[in-house]
Amino acid sequence: MTDHAFTPKFAIPPLDEAAAEAARARQAQLTKPAGSLGRLEDLAIRLAAMTGKVTPRLNHKAVLVFAADHGVTAEGVSAYPAEVTAQMVLNFVRGGAAISVLSRFTHSRLKVVDIGVAADLPPAPNLLERKIAPGTGNIAREPAMSREQAWAALEAGADVVAEEAEEGLDILVLGEMGIGNTTAAAAVACALGGFPPETIVGHGTGVDEAGRQHKATVVQRALARAAVSPTDPIGVLQQVGGFEIGGMAGAMLAAAQRRVPILLDGFIATAAAMLAAALAPDIRGYLIAAHLSAEQGHGQMLGFLGLEPLLRLGLRLGEGSGAALALPLVEAAVRLHAEMATFSEAGVAEKVAA
Amino acid sequence: MTDHAFTPKFAIPPLDEAAAEAARARQAQLTKPAGSLGRLEDLAIRLAAMTGKVTPRLNHKAVLVFAADHGVTAEGVSAYPAEVTAQMVLNFVRGGAAISVLSRFTHSRLKVVDIGVAADLPPAPNLLERKIAPGTGNIAREPAMSREQAWAALEAGADVVAEEAEEGLDILVLGEMGIGNTTAAAAVACALGGFPPETIVGHGTGVDEAGRQHKATVVQRALARAAVSPTDPIGVLQQVGGFEIGGMAGAMLAAAQRRVPILLDGFIATAAAMLAAALAPDIRGYLIAAHLSAEQGHGQMLGFLGLEPLLRLGLRLGEGSGAALALPLVEAAVRLHAEMATFSEAGVAEKVAA
Repeated sequence: MTDHAFTPKFAIPPLDEAAAEAARARQAQLTKPAGSLGRLEDLAIRLAAMTGKVTPRLNHKAVLVFAADHGVTAEGVSAYPAEVTAQMVLNFVRGGAAISVLSRFTHSRLKVVDIGVAADLPPAPNLLERKIAPGTGNIAREPAMSREQAWAALEAGADVVAEEAEEGLDILVLGEMGIGNTTAAAAVACALGGFPPETIVGHGTGVDEAGRQHKATVVQRALARAAVSPTDPIGVLQQVGGFEIGGMAGAMLAAAQRRVPILLDGFIATAAAMLAAALAPDIRGYLIAAHLSAEQGHGQMLGFLGLEPLLRLGLRLGEGSGAALALPLVEAAVRLHAEMATFSEAGVAEKVAA
Repeated sequence: MTDHAFTPKFAIPPLDEAAAEAARARQAQLTKPAGSLGRLEDLAIRLAAMTGKVTPRLNHKAVLVFAADHGVTAEGVSAYPAEVTAQMVLNFVRGGAAISVLSRFTHSRLKVVDIGVAADLPPAPNLLERKIAPGTGNIAREPAMSREQAWAALEAGADVVAEEAEEGLDILVLGEMGIGNTTAAAAVACALGGFPPETIVGHGTGVDEAGRQHKATVVQRALARAAVSPTDPIGVLQQVGGFEIGGMAGAMLAAAQRRVPILLDGFIATAAAMLAAALAPDIRGYLIAAHLSAEQGHGQMLGFLGLEPLLRLGLRLGEGSGAALALPLVEAAVRLHAEMATFSEAGVAEKVAA
């Protein structure tokens, strides 16, 4: 596989402006004051543009959680031991984690993708085995992965979405698990967005302020070592990224290629979105930002992508939990758009001319 | 019925601090970093305090929409003709309105209460006939209603909740319909909260800026005419309120009396909550603010009640639509709290000591 083989394969189709215009016209005829559903109206119109359908439906919902380990945990950047990645994957597939509960609640199918967990995991029906390697290198001292592995991570994510699309896929909810991955995600965001690490690195799962400053120093060291350029996104993934970050970026590219809207979770998923956007800028039109995370820097990253979050609940869990929590809002927008009566259908008088 | 007969009947039980403490302890044991579910953790703990149950469930969900007309529409305060109140009630019960769609989506039972619509409405299974009078007086020139009617509106709302409670009621979603009712709600909010009308009156369903200023003048005239005191909430309802505002306040009092959490919609529902809180201050502990409306002044009103909204989506529709949109978040909080595995159940390592 060469560097040039991948990107053209994931050409993103343009948004369907005719469908968006027809959806906008429909919104104006529904029995409510114009604009009174606020951001849900914009959301319905955006979903029409993405899907090319004037009244899109969300019958098939998939939550994909990419899990991988990170060599940088050797630097003491996380509040939890690295074994927790594998333990939480088991918790996901057994139904006890937040994303397990939220997948059931939203009637979404949950698949967990082992794309680089540093443990042998017992097979489970909803666990997909796509391991590139058992964890990355310690980015403070060495590249996270080889350039081939970086491409392989993207391809693995894309392949999973291709399989999911065969089952029916109307919206993709993306999340991750990986002890140490806020460090890698911060490095990716800084490398691609030009942000100073001090403004992006946050407390992750719960390190204290000294821990956060240490983490920022580790990110700074990784960036200085790697000297990567935002014009080489694959180099960024290879040097300072993670397998789940690459997998999510590949999944996003494959979803957008199929006109499948992507519901973006928090800090790490947004770093993956920056990577996908560096490879194919038009992907931004297919991204819905679910929430603003409590993790410092997430707002700057969303701003870089031109995205406005739906929720602001102080979440900082990952797993796709914030995206799953926003899913009912997206579904409500779609159902209001499709199911509300028009003024003429309902025999309701329209606004008095000013 | 005397002025003194009502309030003691609706004594609000104190929040259950022991249940809240046990819920807080449970949250700390769930397989997630402490605090990482942000406001959903607070919500689960608050619901435990309200219901007195450590792991509350929301099996029975009711949406009550109180509808009434307003004599103040004669002053040209609304962008829509007054007939729209009755037309929209028919749209609610036939399933074509936003709140109809959202009630189906959230598996909530929807009941529409005609507490003062200025039209004879055909019977429908989910339309409750509790008309006090066919619309209020024009508050710019005369009292909205008699003092007896004000009490009757509160009692009617309370009676509906008593009936709903017999069917099973784990959470109450409250909304309203009434052309002209942002004017009455603004007058109630100003009378009870001491706000200047200019800072509270907004564009309602869509009057322009000149219309908004005219509306603020109308509210000012109503308040000057009535000269009501915040220490006489029944007088405020009688002089400048509306039947649906009284009905919602009565419904809130009856819900809190039964430890049923109340999911508050926007501007008009919040004015009703101010009225309920003026009658029984402890009701605040049972209120969940669903969203911050686009209607000017709503943020001040929520602040007066000490409430922080869950959503900020630029909604300004009413009907209970914002409350219904927040319902999945409340349900998610409850389900995460009840269904997530603990660290010991899942065999997941806890945080490394700092």
